[in-house]
Amino acid sequence: MKKLKLLLVCLTFVTAGFSQNTDSAFIKQIFDNVLISRVAYHNLEYLTKNFPGRLIGSPNSIAGLKFFKDYFMRLGVDTVYLQEFKSHSWACDSSSVTMLKENGSEFPLRTDALGTSLSTPKTGIIAEVIEVQGLEELEKLGTEKISGKIVFFNRPMKDTFINTFEAYGDAVDQRAHGPAEAAKYGAAGAIVRSMTTSLDDFPHTGSSRFKENDVRIPALAISTMAANRLSQELKENPKTKVRIFVAARDLPEITTYNLVAEIRGKVKPEEAIIIGGHIDSWFNTAGAHDDGAGCVMTSDVIRIFKEMKIPNKRTIREVIFMDEEMFQSGGKAYADFIAQSGTKPYVALESDEGAFTPESFTVDASDSIVRNVQNFQKLLEPYGIRYIKKGGGGVDIYPLKKSGIPLISYVTDPQRYFDMHHSANDTFDKINYRELNMGIGCITTLVYLIDKYGVE
Amino acid sequence: MKKLKLLLVCLTFVTAGFSQNTDSAFIKQIFDNVLISRVAYHNLEYLTKNFPGRLIGSPNSIAGLKFFKDYFMRLGVDTVYLQEFKSHSWACDSSSVTMLKENGSEFPLRTDALGTSLSTPKTGIIAEVIEVQGLEELEKLGTEKISGKIVFFNRPMKDTFINTFEAYGDAVDQRAHGPAEAAKYGAAGAIVRSMTTSLDDFPHTGSSRFKENDVRIPALAISTMAANRLSQELKENPKTKVRIFVAARDLPEITTYNLVAEIRGKVKPEEAIIIGGHIDSWFNTAGAHDDGAGCVMTSDVIRIFKEMKIPNKRTIREVIFMDEEMFQSGGKAYADFIAQSGTKPYVALESDEGAFTPESFTVDASDSIVRNVQNFQKLLEPYGIRYIKKGGGGVDIYPLKKSGIPLISYVTDPQRYFDMHHSANDTFDKINYRELNMGIGCITTLVYLIDKYGVE
Repeated sequence: MKKLKLLLVCLTFVTAGFSQNTDSAFIKQIFDNVLISRVAYHNLEYLTKNFPGRLIGSPNSIAGLKFFKDYFMRLGVDTVYLQEFKSHSWACDSSSVTMLKENGSEFPLRTDALGTSLSTPKTGIIAEVIEVQGLEELEKLGTEKISGKIVFFNRPMKDTFINTFEAYGDAVDQRAHGPAEAAKYGAAGAIVRSMTTSLDDFPHTGSSRFKENDVRIPALAISTMAANRLSQELKENPKTKVRIFVAARDLPEITTYNLVAEIRGKVKPEEAIIIGGHIDSWFNTAGAHDDGAGCVMTSDVIRIFKEMKIPNKRTIREVIFMDEEMFQSGGKAYADFIAQSGTKPYVALESDEGAFTPESFTVDASDSIVRNVQNFQKLLEPYGIRYIKKGGGGVDIYPLKKSGIPLISYVTDPQRYFDMHHSANDTFDKINYRELNMGIGCITTLVYLIDKYGVE
Repeated sequence: MKKLKLLLVCLTFVTAGFSQNTDSAFIKQIFDNVLISRVAYHNLEYLTKNFPGRLIGSPNSIAGLKFFKDYFMRLGVDTVYLQEFKSHSWACDSSSVTMLKENGSEFPLRTDALGTSLSTPKTGIIAEVIEVQGLEELEKLGTEKISGKIVFFNRPMKDTFINTFEAYGDAVDQRAHGPAEAAKYGAAGAIVRSMTTSLDDFPHTGSSRFKENDVRIPALAISTMAANRLSQELKENPKTKVRIFVAARDLPEITTYNLVAEIRGKVKPEEAIIIGGHIDSWFNTAGAHDDGAGCVMTSDVIRIFKEMKIPNKRTIREVIFMDEEMFQSGGKAYADFIAQSGTKPYVALESDEGAFTPESFTVDASDSIVRNVQNFQKLLEPYGIRYIKKGGGGVDIYPLKKSGIPLISYVTDPQRYFDMHHSANDTFDKINYRELNMGIGCITTLVYLIDKYGVE
């Protein structure tokens, strides 16, 4: 049995060896197509400049989807449609934080409300500030010290993580759960230091979660520069107050969509290779890296398959998801839709780490499937894919896990991502067309290899 | 003998294995220091904002060196001095290219003179344009068709190279040798499409070489957008003329300097590990990536050794070279200075590929030394160093090759480099502090390992 296995391994190697030259040459052709193209780059420019602030429920989120729908119709795909679903949502109209110094002067702190923040009265809320470095401090301080105050979560994202996503993971509990926890101790509001290692004056927003029975309070992100300023003032004058103001609206039921576009497989049309990103962005940003880039990069895969007349055995299906940012309702709605249809896709790949230099793919699947995908790494190495390893597939495709299919995430160089993340700084001029195109080439190549060889 | 070698290899492995954990932990400490630091970042901001346009012979090139000299004095290094040498130089005061359309209207084409361009008369030179795709076309066209015209070299840097330095190497002969070759056929001047894959309106200058007996002519770079515009106009109206204007000066003998700063080795002070970049930049740019970044990154190595009290066995010597761009006179002058001193440095490392995410080191040395340096790669891999391989060491340290020492070059992710290269676009805001700091960490680590283990 062992010998047989060894023989099979050897045979696989020989076969792989033979096809690798052909594959290498063809992959070079894919990159030759991608690297001279500006289609995805211009699509991203159009999307971000015409339809910024694409939060679920916003007109621009729908306009963005329609832009892609038109694009796919012009490409002449086999199918393109909007998959409708209902969701609740939330919208922010205005917000401000003002430091009220003891000497009577006021100092504005750059801010944006956090997703699902409660509104304040029109005149705002004025209260003393209690600065904490994390959620665990709340219990120690207790209701007596917190009640009626504005809790200021100020633990920075650490510079010393090599991977900035780890630094984010290390600090983001303050934004995600801090306001709800502070509310339990009677806080009048919460302000959170922006989730970025960059020292800048952009507020970086994001979702703050309140469970159904949680008391909701006004919650805002302030820029890292504003956070340093406030912290310094509090050291000098602990009784410093701030005035916070939020005008936001709950949208209890909206109709919205995911966009689906596909080119049917010529041999196994029922086996859909799903690729995609999310159309929505925070209200305060053009959403260029997050995640306009993911949308245009994965959409471009279909352009390349069509332009190069690659005879795809399996169906290549682009899904542009709504609402990754707030409630992840698009990913859930699409997975439900798939479950109800009784079909089972073949694999799903998500791009949601921006358009930086390619680094790797992570695969959420059985060990044997992970190994099979890893076998493609050698072909991708000349284009920057350092490794392929077991790991999470991404927020939008995660609900598809219940279908039992492999989930893949495209991973980029993480050094610059959080300079832009969820802020007005995430604009088209931060996109480098070569980095974007290298990503398209890597994703297209992986889809090509999965279509050709399968993953089992 | 072979068995002995094998035994030695095994022992080395064991030793390396034992020390690797200790080294890993210490290297993490180096990165902990670097990643929270803003010293190099702020040095680069100060240098680029206060002293742009640091071409050899310019006051700012000297002011830049003095800035670093002061910095090293504040750091308290063991030695810091300016190493004087004489050179000729060249300076550009002004330049312009104007397209004179057949309908009488004028259209300015964004331009900068190429290094060593001859001046035009004050009224400029007006002539017809002959567009070529490369030097080999000149011979075919011959004197009859070229004489009195302005030759327009318009072969783009190809998008399809994965490594942009290869694309540069593929196209730069037009800028380096095109004008001198065109002059041999009687050209009145030469304009060259900017060396960038970016479609932008920045002229990207650089050196154009004329040998001692070559006829010199006015030579300029125009932006890629201007080049497309001119090319289009020539297709429609082949008799379109341009007016070129250059006001430049030869500087026959100037006194200038390299900067040398070192911390002496505690065990082998005579074995100097040289690290450095070049202070000079083109006249049209702040020179942030090229090569302010190299200067502040390698300078920061010395700060880290001092701050962390690393007991360096060998001397760590920073050399900030003058004149990488025009005549490479600083590198030659320093190598001559070393040769005359009768000393032999231990190794030299250059950083001149900007402050992008770290990718690798290349080593110009014997195979066995290359292998020894490659053994350090595993320790650097968590910080982004994909490989260490045999390759060139860099322009400034190349003249040290005659000393027979290993030359090392720090290599970065190449996708964005030529967007900025030799243009007014190479400003401080294009620097990401994390990418810069990751580079400092990698260079410091390699210097630390070379100091500790040697390269033989």
